[in-house]
Amino acid sequence: MASSITIALDAMGGDLGCEAVVSGASIARVRQPDVRYEFHGDEGQLKPLLDADAELKAVSTIHHTDVAISMDDKPSQALRAGRKVSSMWLAIDAVKQGRAHAAVSCGNTGALTVMARMVLRTMPGISRPALAAIWPTMRGETVVLDVGANVVAEHDALVNFAIMGEAMARTALGQPKPTVGLLNIGAEEMKGNEQIKAAAETLRSTHLDFEFAGFVEGDDISKGTVDVVVTDGFTGNIALKTAEGTARLIGDYLSNAMRRSLASRIGYLFARGAFNVLRQRMDPSRVNGGVFLGLNGVVVKSHGSATAEGIAAALDLAIDMARNDIIKKIAVDLEQVQGGRDDAAEQAEATPEPSTA
Amino acid sequence: MASSITIALDAMGGDLGCEAVVSGASIARVRQPDVRYEFHGDEGQLKPLLDADAELKAVSTIHHTDVAISMDDKPSQALRAGRKVSSMWLAIDAVKQGRAHAAVSCGNTGALTVMARMVLRTMPGISRPALAAIWPTMRGETVVLDVGANVVAEHDALVNFAIMGEAMARTALGQPKPTVGLLNIGAEEMKGNEQIKAAAETLRSTHLDFEFAGFVEGDDISKGTVDVVVTDGFTGNIALKTAEGTARLIGDYLSNAMRRSLASRIGYLFARGAFNVLRQRMDPSRVNGGVFLGLNGVVVKSHGSATAEGIAAALDLAIDMARNDIIKKIAVDLEQVQGGRDDAAEQAEATPEPSTA
Repeated sequence: MASSITIALDAMGGDLGCEAVVSGASIARVRQPDVRYEFHGDEGQLKPLLDADAELKAVSTIHHTDVAISMDDKPSQALRAGRKVSSMWLAIDAVKQGRAHAAVSCGNTGALTVMARMVLRTMPGISRPALAAIWPTMRGETVVLDVGANVVAEHDALVNFAIMGEAMARTALGQPKPTVGLLNIGAEEMKGNEQIKAAAETLRSTHLDFEFAGFVEGDDISKGTVDVVVTDGFTGNIALKTAEGTARLIGDYLSNAMRRSLASRIGYLFARGAFNVLRQRMDPSRVNGGVFLGLNGVVVKSHGSATAEGIAAALDLAIDMARNDIIKKIAVDLEQVQGGRDDAAEQAEATPEPSTA
Repeated sequence: MASSITIALDAMGGDLGCEAVVSGASIARVRQPDVRYEFHGDEGQLKPLLDADAELKAVSTIHHTDVAISMDDKPSQALRAGRKVSSMWLAIDAVKQGRAHAAVSCGNTGALTVMARMVLRTMPGISRPALAAIWPTMRGETVVLDVGANVVAEHDALVNFAIMGEAMARTALGQPKPTVGLLNIGAEEMKGNEQIKAAAETLRSTHLDFEFAGFVEGDDISKGTVDVVVTDGFTGNIALKTAEGTARLIGDYLSNAMRRSLASRIGYLFARGAFNVLRQRMDPSRVNGGVFLGLNGVVVKSHGSATAEGIAAALDLAIDMARNDIIKKIAVDLEQVQGGRDDAAEQAEATPEPSTA
């Protein structure tokens, strides 16, 4: 791959439209000036926005389409209307064609999952991609996956999520040897469903190049107990949205508390700097962007309501993943485990009743 | 039932032991002076604590046992060692015997679930009890269930959770006509697993005495979108613990931000009152206590690490449930729905292919 990275943007999918996407790229460009952008969307809207930002325009191209996937479309509707013609499809296809190193969309998650899978295909040994998010913790950041690409995940899928999440933690968090935990409702062996127990058994018995830390609970995510938290997309999505809701609730409590009395208003003025730091740390746009893992290409899903700052964060993540060639890292890891699994299968055949206690 | 309520306490199960339990009852007694307490635990520890609080002693009895269930015991171990003799079993049995109107324990959730079910039995039509928690929201409070009694929940169980949660919202939140939502990963019909879709279908088609609001997402819990959020125990437990972890993380951010500079420290002094209000609102002990629903008796599970304030909150909840005779309310609701279900079953038989779209 060339040293310069190109990112393909679905400029039509988000709630805030082309304007937020172009503004986001404008912020990202200042931070990483050597990246190029392909905007997929309505030229009539995109051209004036880029004309107003000469520096961004110099590193950008516009690929016109006026077909947008709506947030309310079911994946089947999105495919009927948007296959090969929508801004979402075309941005992903730019990765497939080798023109772009990653695609970024703020669009409908269901449609994006289906289109990304159809265009880029899953990697060998992976049946479904997972959506991974970076979560702020007391110790730094943790990768959580799946946060919504799959409603259910069988034990093999959970094992693959562990492998892919570990590669992402090395790439995005710079952890040389990440620890991986399986999200469960108790640290005791007896708890949890069958898929989780079987996945834990495989992760313990297979020779992997990372430390499997066993089960973790919901509060371990924010504690930063492990670098990677593995779960199915249903549970992960609910955990992510519950955390977002809790942060908003506390922000609401805080601003009400600060308006309570004259003294608290004076206090607020003095502590304004501290509140700004807090607001930045709590700002969901800072960690905006889920990465689809397990595809033959990088696709980043930004929040549908992401502002320019949020889109810039998603672009940073996409650039980081592309620059560090995460796809190749995952492929190497998967191959290694596939080998390990074959060994384990042979051993299992040799032993009539493998222990699962 | 007599006008005076008696609560049976498992005094040995929690991390902080007899002392926190007696102190908790002492706080609750001031708030609700006409309640009586049965302490199940080591008399050698309990007697001096009660001797030091004459008013609490006057409304209390001690039932000696020195068998405690440990936090690390698996339910099977707990049953072997603690059946009929442990403080946990004896507190629940006091409800069965009719001496107490509710039992409260800070012990091991798994053991408590199994013992409560064994002693009190489930209500007609209920195969497994659910653990319900009261969650603070932007609009007040919301009942969330199941938060950990069952790892999986089939569609019938989810429907029963909705019925029991609605009765609890009427009782504990004083909502005359609560709204009920099913926790899912998207508001669209197509999302979610089969159990959830089938439960939604039944809740929509059965004639129920409450408003079924359809699917809600993780962030809707804190928003207070509905009065009752229904989910399986795996997802509910992870959502609850993720929210607790997020609240702690933000508390951590906040205290770090306030120590950042001289100005922020001065601001903190002025706004101290506001911070105290915030701390109270964020304090998990304020809403401590999950209620087992679906049993022939009230059992409240307090957090294992609950302080005296937390135990007092759990006692308040138990007293409230007992006083409002929630068991009877649930029984009436279940009977009504059971009738509705039989009707629906007859209709389904008459119609060869019922619509599930």
